[in-house]
Amino acid sequence: MTGKIKPIGIIHSPFSTKEDAPIQGTYSPNSKGTVELFPEYEEGLRDIETFSHIIVLYQFDRAGEVKLVRPTFLDDEPHGVFASRHPCRPNSLGFTVVRLISRKKNLLEVSGIDVLDKTPVIDIKPYIPRFDCFPEANEGWLASKKKRPKPDGRE
Amino acid sequence: MTGKIKPIGIIHSPFSTKEDAPIQGTYSPNSKGTVELFPEYEEGLRDIETFSHIIVLYQFDRAGEVKLVRPTFLDDEPHGVFASRHPCRPNSLGFTVVRLISRKKNLLEVSGIDVLDKTPVIDIKPYIPRFDCFPEANEGWLASKKKRPKPDGRE
Repeated sequence: MTGKIKPIGIIHSPFSTKEDAPIQGTYSPNSKGTVELFPEYEEGLRDIETFSHIIVLYQFDRAGEVKLVRPTFLDDEPHGVFASRHPCRPNSLGFTVVRLISRKKNLLEVSGIDVLDKTPVIDIKPYIPRFDCFPEANEGWLASKKKRPKPDGRE
Repeated sequence: MTGKIKPIGIIHSPFSTKEDAPIQGTYSPNSKGTVELFPEYEEGLRDIETFSHIIVLYQFDRAGEVKLVRPTFLDDEPHGVFASRHPCRPNSLGFTVVRLISRKKNLLEVSGIDVLDKTPVIDIKPYIPRFDCFPEANEGWLASKKKRPKPDGRE
C-alpha cells in the first residue's frame, strides 16, 4: 500500500538555507515563524488556539540522498537514520513541536521553529503532555552530545 | 508538490478492531506490540536500542471519511481535526510515542502501543526529551476531559 501526501499548508520561517536553520527548535526557542494552512483547511483548526504547543509534521522537501546510516549534526559517528532526526530519510517526513503564540484565521504564529522557509506542512496535531511528554525517556547516543556548530558540508 | 509515502514496515499489536484499540498509548502503557521494519531498512535502525522511547509515524489505513470538524472519543463537542488526534484527517498520518523494550534485528518490541494490528509504519524517530518533552504545555480543550469508554459508533 502506497499513499499520496499532499501539503495542507506552508511554513514561513527566518531560515532560507540549511546552514541558517537550527539543529532543533529547542535550540532556537525564540525564532518565530508562521504556519499557513491553505484556506480550504482552515475549518480544521477550530479550537487549536486552546493549545500552547502544537506538533507540526512537514516534508523535508530539500533533503538530499537517503542513506540508511550516516553521521549527524551532533555526532561524527554514523548512526542509523531511524535512530536520528536526520532529514535525508525514507518518506522525507519531519516532526517538530512549536509554541503556538496566536492564530489569525488560517495563520498560526509560532515560536521555536527550526525548519526552512517555504517548507510544506503535512499535518498539525495538538501537543498534549498527557500523551506526548515522557520526561523519564533517556537520550540514547545523544546523551553525551552537546549543541555545536553544524559541521561544514554535512546535511 | 505531492509526494508518495511508502510503508517501511508494519506494526503488530493486540488490537484487531477499532473498538479494541485504546484512545492513546498512555492509556494502555502495558500493551505490547512489535514494530517490524522491512528487512531492506534494517540498517537504518543502528543504535536505536540506545533509546528508551521512540516516535512512530504510521498510516491510519482503516480510517473513515475525512471531516475537518467532528466530535472525538474524549468529547462530544466537535473540534477541528488539527486540534485533535482524530484518525480521519488529511494525509492519514498517526503519531505515537512508545517505550522500546528490546530490538532483535528488524523487530522492535515496544509497549504503550495504541494502534491497530497490521498498521503500516511510515517513519521511526528517536524520542529525545531535550527536543520533544514540553511539560509546561497546556492541554487545551482536553484539560477537563477524562478518559472514558469510546462512544458507540464514533470513529
